[in-house]
Amino acid sequence: MKRHLISAADLTRDDAVLILDTAEELARVADRTIRKLPTLRGRTVVNLFFEDSTRTRISFEAAAKRLSADVINFSAKGSSVSKGESLKDTALTLEAMGADAVVIRHHDSGAPHRLATSGWIGGSVVNAGDGTHEHPTQALLDAFTLRRRLVGGSDGGAGRDLSGRRVTVVGDILHSRVARSNVHLLTTLGAEVTLVAPPTLVPLGAERWPCEVSYDLDAVLPKSDAVMMLRVQRERMNAAFFPTEREYARRYGLDGDRMARMPEHAVVMHPGPMNRGMEITAEVADSDRCTAVEQVAGGVTIRMAVLYLLLGGAEPAVSVPAPTAAGTTTRTEENV
Amino acid sequence: MKRHLISAADLTRDDAVLILDTAEELARVADRTIRKLPTLRGRTVVNLFFEDSTRTRISFEAAAKRLSADVINFSAKGSSVSKGESLKDTALTLEAMGADAVVIRHHDSGAPHRLATSGWIGGSVVNAGDGTHEHPTQALLDAFTLRRRLVGGSDGGAGRDLSGRRVTVVGDILHSRVARSNVHLLTTLGAEVTLVAPPTLVPLGAERWPCEVSYDLDAVLPKSDAVMMLRVQRERMNAAFFPTEREYARRYGLDGDRMARMPEHAVVMHPGPMNRGMEITAEVADSDRCTAVEQVAGGVTIRMAVLYLLLGGAEPAVSVPAPTAAGTTTRTEENV
Amino acid sequence: MKRHLISAADLTRDDAVLILDTAEELARVADRTIRKLPTLRGRTVVNLFFEDSTRTRISFEAAAKRLSADVINFSAKGSSVSKGESLKDTALTLEAMGADAVVIRHHDSGAPHRLATSGWIGGSVVNAGDGTHEHPTQALLDAFTLRRRLVGGSDGGAGRDLSGRRVTVVGDILHSRVARSNVHLLTTLGAEVTLVAPPTLVPLGAERWPCEVSYDLDAVLPKSDAVMMLRVQRERMNAAFFPTEREYARRYGLDGDRMARMPEHAVVMHPGPMNRGMEITAEVADSDRCTAVEQVAGGVTIRMAVLYLLLGGAEPAVSVPAPTAAGTTTRTEENV
Repeated sequence: MKRHLISAADLTRDDAVLILDTAEELARVADRTIRKLPTLRGRTVVNLFFEDSTRTRISFEAAAKRLSADVINFSAKGSSVSKGESLKDTALTLEAMGADAVVIRHHDSGAPHRLATSGWIGGSVVNAGDGTHEHPTQALLDAFTLRRRLVGGSDGGAGRDLSGRRVTVVGDILHSRVARSNVHLLTTLGAEVTLVAPPTLVPLGAERWPCEVSYDLDAVLPKSDAVMMLRVQRERMNAAFFPTEREYARRYGLDGDRMARMPEHAVVMHPGPMNRGMEITAEVADSDRCTAVEQVAGGVTIRMAVLYLLLGGAEPAVSVPAPTAAGTTTRTEENV
Repeated sequence: MKRHLISAADLTRDDAVLILDTAEELARVADRTIRKLPTLRGRTVVNLFFEDSTRTRISFEAAAKRLSADVINFSAKGSSVSKGESLKDTALTLEAMGADAVVIRHHDSGAPHRLATSGWIGGSVVNAGDGTHEHPTQALLDAFTLRRRLVGGSDGGAGRDLSGRRVTVVGDILHSRVARSNVHLLTTLGAEVTLVAPPTLVPLGAERWPCEVSYDLDAVLPKSDAVMMLRVQRERMNAAFFPTEREYARRYGLDGDRMARMPEHAVVMHPGPMNRGMEITAEVADSDRCTAVEQVAGGVTIRMAVLYLLLGGAEPAVSVPAPTAAGTTTRTEENV
Repeated sequence: MKRHLISAADLTRDDAVLILDTAEELARVADRTIRKLPTLRGRTVVNLFFEDSTRTRISFEAAAKRLSADVINFSAKGSSVSKGESLKDTALTLEAMGADAVVIRHHDSGAPHRLATSGWIGGSVVNAGDGTHEHPTQALLDAFTLRRRLVGGSDGGAGRDLSGRRVTVVGDILHSRVARSNVHLLTTLGAEVTLVAPPTLVPLGAERWPCEVSYDLDAVLPKSDAVMMLRVQRERMNAAFFPTEREYARRYGLDGDRMARMPEHAVVMHPGPMNRGMEITAEVADSDRCTAVEQVAGGVTIRMAVLYLLLGGAEPAVSVPAPTAAGTTTRTEENV
């Protein structure tokens, strides 16, 4: 794997499967039994957040702490950044303080890329969401959840990808970094992706993306193994001249009737937080088919896997049996 | 003990004495000698604060860290909660992230109860103050301080309650969750409680509470073993049509003259932060009889005891000698 | 060493050299090899910040965590401090919670001194910047950087001071606690200090300080071993009736032409964050002669040294070889 995680588009199928498999192993070990792994003891992870996002921040924080890393939260509000310090000087400061990984959330698409390619930072950069560009760990946790639900097996589908699974992404594709990262990652993993959105919320050029575009939710539901509902950003809806919230819910919201049109095995995903009554009804949100909570749990595990793989570590992610006399090593160690 | 701590009213005498005794043991061990106990290593405590309260938050944070737990602070400000996320979705998120305990402060009376009884959370819920309802750890730390001062002994009164001690609570009873929790806990522990307040600041139905109500502070002082001064919330004073701050201080404030009317052994309590010159004069606040600082110290200890007892833990709270040959176990282990 | 660090003016030459030498040892050990020292395990360091300063706060936080201390961040905003709690009550609260060190940043000159001499606090007080008074750890990290660059040697100049080095400090001396602390510390360490500032930004009485004052930057550059550029606080510039920012940059800013007038070995310092184009051009900021980034790294190391020395600790700061048979101890242990 590379040293940074900037974009789901950068990941090869093998990279992605490696991350999912590592997460699967971590989920197996680091649950209620062994609660804290010593893997990243002494490493410092900085959460550099230029936008508020408590959920994403605490997910990375929990992941880093379970690996025994130290976490420093750097909110750009009220910091010298708001006094006009450049991203460069902030980066050099964090580097000088010995940050081993910088998890960055930024309103500008491309800021994490700039940070990673600048040479300002010796550690790893992890994109935790940049503008309307990408949010790769969200796509990874979605893929992790999908693989467990749709590929499954007692090993959570370890080693396998999502070949042939049909995933429908519904909502404001235009502004959604979650949608963008998912299109990249899911197709890399072999899934077939369909986007469903009001015409004003489909990005220009989406016809060149490796996926279908549809304006008719009801038509695609019966052919979906998973339906991913995006969160409606109310302020953006207005900017998109979309008639009304009620009209949106009627045409693009998922309710019980629509869910009944999905195949029986199909799941409903949502990155959270949900607008109940808007893009999803309470009935659907609370049904067994909705994976929103599993996605959150998977988020911590995926972020543990990403931090573990990026920060290298001489130690394996999880305790493994000693190599056999024949000199073979376990897969975990090879992963490193 | 139950799995949650929502209300002082829920505690039996034995529950309460168990918490005080556990705190007493922790105070004995985890002071300057052994500064950090490994008891909750690998557990995650989330401080979920919908209201700012730095003092309470850092008290829980210090308590959890001394027991080696990881702490994640989740301030609802600037989080998706302020974007309209429901308490339910927040709870499910924290649960999915593996929170072992959620310490919740909320402006709505009943929010912690809802969280604890909803089934959304597998871990423990600790009420850190909800609306005008309860603040049970405050009452416990007050009882802890009272027992040390009024019952005492080299063991801090271990195993004993507050039978026969007379405690007077003075101020805005109507809006005070501290008063409410103290009335419940102190009477459960056998103390006799008298409330003193302006008539407009006594709650309707207080005559059915298990305590006396008086409007004459000077009359009850000579019969008090402890006088607990509540903090005046200035904005609420106005809402209560109370004449003036000066008038309040004259009639319900504690100054040196009034303190002299108390029995010699009697103590003055305050939950902090104090409005010096308002409900308490600097002379009283700084006297040896004022326990405000002991209360803060007791707060960390009580919260350690509560977290320890709720999170169960296979290990005893403190290192204890091995069981004797006769097979008896120490009290600490029984407590668990 | 004393129990507190309030002012660079309080440090003797030996105190200062001890801190620099301890930092040098820590830098040697606690780098990428041994990332975390157990020295302050179980100790609690509170960052009590009445002013926002993310950079200084996370530097102390990183330093404390690398020594295995627990860190609690107490921002005075939104706390009971903003409800009118006195510094005294805040201090008593932190003391009662068991703070071993309080790192305080305050808008009032003298607040850390008051905290340290009040008897309210049993632990150590470290001044992280108070009003226009002092910022001693900034001066120490500047001296640390200077010694490495100008005295050097494979041991970073251990045991030595800055005798005979000529340091020029340029900018708003009047309002700068950084300048004030540096004048004290650098002269204590034997350096010769020259202040360069617009006449309105030189403090009254500066002629009695142990340094030169000049209004002509170009004249002093060729005689400087180091030039320390202060950050321009734009709001203060206006208050000082200084003509324009452009005029300031022209007369007191450091650009490539001016840097060329400095001796070849001379360095450019800046406490950060830099106003590129104002007091320093990007060309100078990014040159090898600019030590801004080294200063940040030195900041963490110096703060580790200060916390280590103040919190005493029975253990040496770094692991050292056992004493030889001859009974000599290592310098590290003597330092303690």
